[in-house]
Amino acid sequence: MKKLIKGLREFKSSYFPANEELFEQLSHGQKPRVLFITCSDSRIDPNLITQAGLGELFVIRNAGNIIPPYGATNGGEGATIEYAIQALDIQQIIICGHSHCGAMKGLMKLDSLRVEMPLVHDWLKYAEATRRLVKDNYSNYEGEDLLEIIIAENVLTQIENLRTYPVIRSKLHQGQISIYAWIYQIETGEVLTYDAQKHAYVLLLNQPSPSQIDERLSSPPFTSNGERPFTKNQQQAFQSFHKPPISTDTGFPMTVLSPEQMERIYRGSTTK
Amino acid sequence: MKKLIKGLREFKSSYFPANEELFEQLSHGQKPRVLFITCSDSRIDPNLITQAGLGELFVIRNAGNIIPPYGATNGGEGATIEYAIQALDIQQIIICGHSHCGAMKGLMKLDSLRVEMPLVHDWLKYAEATRRLVKDNYSNYEGEDLLEIIIAENVLTQIENLRTYPVIRSKLHQGQISIYAWIYQIETGEVLTYDAQKHAYVLLLNQPSPSQIDERLSSPPFTSNGERPFTKNQQQAFQSFHKPPISTDTGFPMTVLSPEQMERIYRGSTTK
Amino acid sequence: MKKLIKGLREFKSSYFPANEELFEQLSHGQKPRVLFITCSDSRIDPNLITQAGLGELFVIRNAGNIIPPYGATNGGEGATIEYAIQALDIQQIIICGHSHCGAMKGLMKLDSLRVEMPLVHDWLKYAEATRRLVKDNYSNYEGEDLLEIIIAENVLTQIENLRTYPVIRSKLHQGQISIYAWIYQIETGEVLTYDAQKHAYVLLLNQPSPSQIDERLSSPPFTSNGERPFTKNQQQAFQSFHKPPISTDTGFPMTVLSPEQMERIYRGSTTK
Amino acid sequence: MKKLIKGLREFKSSYFPANEELFEQLSHGQKPRVLFITCSDSRIDPNLITQAGLGELFVIRNAGNIIPPYGATNGGEGATIEYAIQALDIQQIIICGHSHCGAMKGLMKLDSLRVEMPLVHDWLKYAEATRRLVKDNYSNYEGEDLLEIIIAENVLTQIENLRTYPVIRSKLHQGQISIYAWIYQIETGEVLTYDAQKHAYVLLLNQPSPSQIDERLSSPPFTSNGERPFTKNQQQAFQSFHKPPISTDTGFPMTVLSPEQMERIYRGSTTK
Repeated sequence: MKKLIKGLREFKSSYFPANEELFEQLSHGQKPRVLFITCSDSRIDPNLITQAGLGELFVIRNAGNIIPPYGATNGGEGATIEYAIQALDIQQIIICGHSHCGAMKGLMKLDSLRVEMPLVHDWLKYAEATRRLVKDNYSNYEGEDLLEIIIAENVLTQIENLRTYPVIRSKLHQGQISIYAWIYQIETGEVLTYDAQKHAYVLLLNQPSPSQIDERLSSPPFTSNGERPFTKNQQQAFQSFHKPPISTDTGFPMTVLSPEQMERIYRGSTTK
Repeated sequence: MKKLIKGLREFKSSYFPANEELFEQLSHGQKPRVLFITCSDSRIDPNLITQAGLGELFVIRNAGNIIPPYGATNGGEGATIEYAIQALDIQQIIICGHSHCGAMKGLMKLDSLRVEMPLVHDWLKYAEATRRLVKDNYSNYEGEDLLEIIIAENVLTQIENLRTYPVIRSKLHQGQISIYAWIYQIETGEVLTYDAQKHAYVLLLNQPSPSQIDERLSSPPFTSNGERPFTKNQQQAFQSFHKPPISTDTGFPMTVLSPEQMERIYRGSTTK
Repeated sequence: MKKLIKGLREFKSSYFPANEELFEQLSHGQKPRVLFITCSDSRIDPNLITQAGLGELFVIRNAGNIIPPYGATNGGEGATIEYAIQALDIQQIIICGHSHCGAMKGLMKLDSLRVEMPLVHDWLKYAEATRRLVKDNYSNYEGEDLLEIIIAENVLTQIENLRTYPVIRSKLHQGQISIYAWIYQIETGEVLTYDAQKHAYVLLLNQPSPSQIDERLSSPPFTSNGERPFTKNQQQAFQSFHKPPISTDTGFPMTVLSPEQMERIYRGSTTK
Repeated sequence: MKKLIKGLREFKSSYFPANEELFEQLSHGQKPRVLFITCSDSRIDPNLITQAGLGELFVIRNAGNIIPPYGATNGGEGATIEYAIQALDIQQIIICGHSHCGAMKGLMKLDSLRVEMPLVHDWLKYAEATRRLVKDNYSNYEGEDLLEIIIAENVLTQIENLRTYPVIRSKLHQGQISIYAWIYQIETGEVLTYDAQKHAYVLLLNQPSPSQIDERLSSPPFTSNGERPFTKNQQQAFQSFHKPPISTDTGFPMTVLSPEQMERIYRGSTTK
């Protein structure tokens, strides 16, 4: 606690005077451009990893970056989403999972939580679609590999849940919202993003031509939209979002992935 | 009631003897191929309109053919879906709305229901995304036209809700479930189906070459699938499902549709 | 799916033209006389077995023909019942169970469902009164016999649940609603109905003089009412409804029925 | 979005290499010392204002920094608190409100939210104690002054709610948790903290002798405890927590504060 108070003093004596104008301006209202939904995990600092300034990120944080389906509960998630979209007119949403997520570890040993942490147990019900999908489709993985799959699939599950909110559905219809799936890697400080064209998470920065990639990855891949002209690629990108991250060039049946495929799916195909 | 008893007698004395073998066989178990979700409305008879025999359709019926998002409530819908997919291994789901739907009319005058029919009012919460989307995007429609839009959009809303169920999400991932959006027209006895390629509901039967069309419309347009080889068209069909039913050849901004566009969207482009 | 589309075509080309007037009339509104609540099981077709026409049956279908007690959940059942009684002024309700019911089989192995089909498990909570009653009173039955008892008792349980709805309770008070308990036998195509006077399910059609029997069986046996003068028989009928279906001429305690009694209760006393 | 990706690149190329050891260490687990509960508002960056490093703050963020009472709902708040205390053994909790809070403004016009933002409306139910207390006790305030009172009282309301969680209650009983009420002033970058001895929010840093003040303000003022010997001051601190923040030198009844009292309560008595 003393450390925090010392920090407050530092902040007040150095950061604040250097940015006084910004603070004055922020006191008149916020106009964030991004709703950033991530885990409560102390190892994530959304503003730090994106170098976003004060006033740029509207943030929801809970254990496991979980969004209950619309109507499932009256927790803060739904209200905060509604406020972000309706009152603040935010048009970009990032759901950001992360490696080594304790909540997702909980999904792997759900029964043991029933007594020990009953609220966590009940909360993970909203990640049940993740648990089920992984159990049915990745049964030959375990340990760290399994955890990585769970983390990756869970971000996509939560996007499905997010889409059931009235305010989201209406804006998607109008093509006014983009939704991004991110995974933050604690050990490398890197971010993976779901590339709907590749049905895979890819490293956001590790691409041949940065400017070109940035164009693609910073365009709204999950916008449900018919208003502005799509390039063919963009359209495919959005459209294939709902497909499972399955390689199509490896024959079938493909219910079980090889470690190499898995590697490619989860880490993105450009890592060597 | 007397009429029903008379009907039972007829059924027993004519239909039953003529199909005794079928009944004997059904007594050993059911193996339906389709989960048919529709409204309780008395003017719909799923078996009649599809000429499906006993044992072919597993049926959920409630006011408004509504499926609450996963976890939103403990009504019969979720359990029955789970049973259909998990225990019966059904792989095709039809959500079938219909013209003149009383529940959807209720969406247009929600406030008046609060006192008069509180359970209906609360139930329509799970069609709130429909109400919101239509309010935001079709504000210049009213009366019958508005009702038709609501009915059409609601079927798509309920498919979004359906996708949040763990058992559905896992099977979609494996490409083992197809979901179809239908609208039954009481006055014409016709069925519209959502054609994801056209972003429009089209008449299921009113197509140039029946055999060819049947091929397309009876293939799983909403299968989320990477396993079996898709034709390019099929793939596009699925992929564009989530796009709003907006014409792309009419310029922009397209937030408000002309009556002609609307006509085309809702009734399908082949009606003249 | 192709088969269904073929069926739609048949329906449109043969049934529809032959009944065009009916369809025209139905497009102006529905006026069903019966709310028919039954299981989602594909082997049941309410309109077929009762030979009811379009517009006659308002239908609720879910796994196990279960009606949660009022206030227990916000699923479609309550809203649909409310709509049927309040908006459509329906005065006759049939709850129709059936032989070989998969949901009722689930009641016999509830624990195993917790993991395998959690939503079904939770849904069967609303049939817990059935499970408990049968466990306490029919402990010496097993297998098929036990299943038949469960199915029969569950219809009565669900009628109890149905009676908790405000709209039902008020109309029952006014003597304006009749509730019938039916069991459809898949293998024989026959329907049993609960005869409150006999405390037994009896074959609806297998009676000496059809016209006379029809009179009794088509009169409202379960009209609950305390205000208008009951005939003695009617009163007994109502009062004995809440009792277990026990024979009154065999002394007590009667927690366990003899096979003969059971036979009579479940199959009806007139079967030879 | 491009700006965020540019930020990610900066973070990866400058911050990460300079702190590689920290990231390596964090990949083995988190050991945060503080649970920091604050609003989703984009103008707050918990790590920035406290200068806390990665791994130090476990963060819950939602609209209005609201914690529903235990059992009231199954949102993320309860599960995340449980995880923080039970799994991570965190012993210090800060609930941090802030000036110009949009959610708290919502409390002032609750009725208008019912239609416009129904989820926000329902969510604010968990701040109803704030609304009621302020309505009953500060009726002669309005506008900005009223908003400041609401913000200040709401943090205390949410601490009451927080205390209803089993895991919190048990740890409080053992004297193993400290709870702090903070208010962050967007325009000045300063933090007020509730001083239970003074029944007032005081500026955390604006004290004669920093070291001395830090001692007091960084000690657990709200540790609830009956087991280990309290110092007289500590005991008073806890006991007076539950009282309204009233001045003790002005007699009673004190339902309405004078502007001077209000000034002192809200801003802290040391501001000149």
